[in-house]
Amino acid sequence: MAQLLKGAPVASEICEKVQDRVSLLRDRGVVPTLATVRVGGNDGDIYYERSALKRCGSLGIETESIVFPENVEESELLDTIHRLNNDSRIHGVLIFRPLPKHIDDQRVRDALSPEKDIDGITDGSLAGVFTGSGRGFCPCTAQSCMEILRYYKIDCTGMRAVVLGRSLVIGKPVSQLLLANNATVTVCHTRTRDISSETRRADIIVAAVGHAHAIGVDHVSPGQIIIDVGTNTGEDGKMCGDADTSLIEPIVHAITPVPGGVGSVTTAVLALHTVEAAERAVCNTNL
Amino acid sequence: MAQLLKGAPVASEICEKVQDRVSLLRDRGVVPTLATVRVGGNDGDIYYERSALKRCGSLGIETESIVFPENVEESELLDTIHRLNNDSRIHGVLIFRPLPKHIDDQRVRDALSPEKDIDGITDGSLAGVFTGSGRGFCPCTAQSCMEILRYYKIDCTGMRAVVLGRSLVIGKPVSQLLLANNATVTVCHTRTRDISSETRRADIIVAAVGHAHAIGVDHVSPGQIIIDVGTNTGEDGKMCGDADTSLIEPIVHAITPVPGGVGSVTTAVLALHTVEAAERAVCNTNL
Repeated sequence: MAQLLKGAPVASEICEKVQDRVSLLRDRGVVPTLATVRVGGNDGDIYYERSALKRCGSLGIETESIVFPENVEESELLDTIHRLNNDSRIHGVLIFRPLPKHIDDQRVRDALSPEKDIDGITDGSLAGVFTGSGRGFCPCTAQSCMEILRYYKIDCTGMRAVVLGRSLVIGKPVSQLLLANNATVTVCHTRTRDISSETRRADIIVAAVGHAHAIGVDHVSPGQIIIDVGTNTGEDGKMCGDADTSLIEPIVHAITPVPGGVGSVTTAVLALHTVEAAERAVCNTNL
Repeated sequence: MAQLLKGAPVASEICEKVQDRVSLLRDRGVVPTLATVRVGGNDGDIYYERSALKRCGSLGIETESIVFPENVEESELLDTIHRLNNDSRIHGVLIFRPLPKHIDDQRVRDALSPEKDIDGITDGSLAGVFTGSGRGFCPCTAQSCMEILRYYKIDCTGMRAVVLGRSLVIGKPVSQLLLANNATVTVCHTRTRDISSETRRADIIVAAVGHAHAIGVDHVSPGQIIIDVGTNTGEDGKMCGDADTSLIEPIVHAITPVPGGVGSVTTAVLALHTVEAAERAVCNTNL
């Protein structure tokens, strides 16, 4: 039976550190604050928003939740982002995406100050991920994968890591983080000829496909570590990952459960980034 | 015998297009202009500078060559970059790197206007390479690899591409370009456990190791395409690539020679980027 790489203890460990850092900031009169910006009423967004606000609240991070109707004018959304950029009380801004089609995604991402971009959506943050400069912030989900590996003492050095998916939210950034941790990284995607021949020879598989049953017995080998980033709805209406967990669990060495794996770490990373943004703001003010 | 993927015809084709675009710009009273900034007298830099200036000159691109002594103050170098940023006659700036150790590389890269960064050294350009947004410019050498593949009608879709090296000058950007062209991309580096087991199963190998003999008969298989980015000095004092060309040429399908391969395309790409920067500047002025 595979080891279950649960997210809860990873999140707890991160949150403990966040709490200490929040206290230090509050002692100095700084209240770390996160603003969330949501357009419309997507169920997944509402669920994540609620978890994020709850997590932050429990750690002493203030929150401001902004919600627009689905048909909001782009200009109104941009005005709000500019206001948040200029509000020194706000340290981090989380914008739920994808946005409705009438809104220009690139324009919205460009509008956000990179210093407040705690979920890595701006070019500034993504450049930091690509160059390894440490500037900006990594997308929270990508970093959550790495936090799980770190917590469970899985050293990527020299390992073959195969990433399924090349999105800017997860596939591409996690591939850069794995590379920075000295893994030999392969990125597969919809145009990859024979995915299972790539995944079978991996030491670590990061699955960000977005389809239930994308990773089955044909894709895995004994000894592997599976990080399942998928959040899909199974035929039974329940949440499931990209992996056929019950089938591959007897084969692989370790796997993150869904739910209870990567997804349960992201709000902790979001809180961590918010505190870090507040700390950086304090440093810059004192310079 | 392997097909030799020579750079000269690739460069010629690019230059033909550049020449047409230069004419169009000059007809509108715009003279595309490249400034080169060199610190010290590194032989490789001087050689490349001479080729770049010659190539641009032959295509109707004006050039300004700035040379500082090895011990130039950082502030003087930064002042020059600011002057070039603000000089509307200058469309592209090529800064030779690595810079001497007393100069902060990141500060210099940050100083350059992304709009004039025709060799992809700024965070703005690198974000564009990573996100595929088309903003900024790709490092010329990385793009030269892709121009060779394009010219010789090698469609990367679904191919296994193995990149050796993870630098920001070549390994990382070329991996993103290959990915954007739908290859399944693996990045190997000094910490990769068994490089030859990765390279042997590749369809395309891009070698940017920087060591002569890095790619030998053990690394290759029949049918492969080898893009050799190395520029090393062999034991005989002659320039050579990363590949043991004479030994692997009987095995592989195609290989870029060194000299005469990737390196002979870079100045053409540099000229192309300079013209493109000039065209973008015209567009922005007319908006």
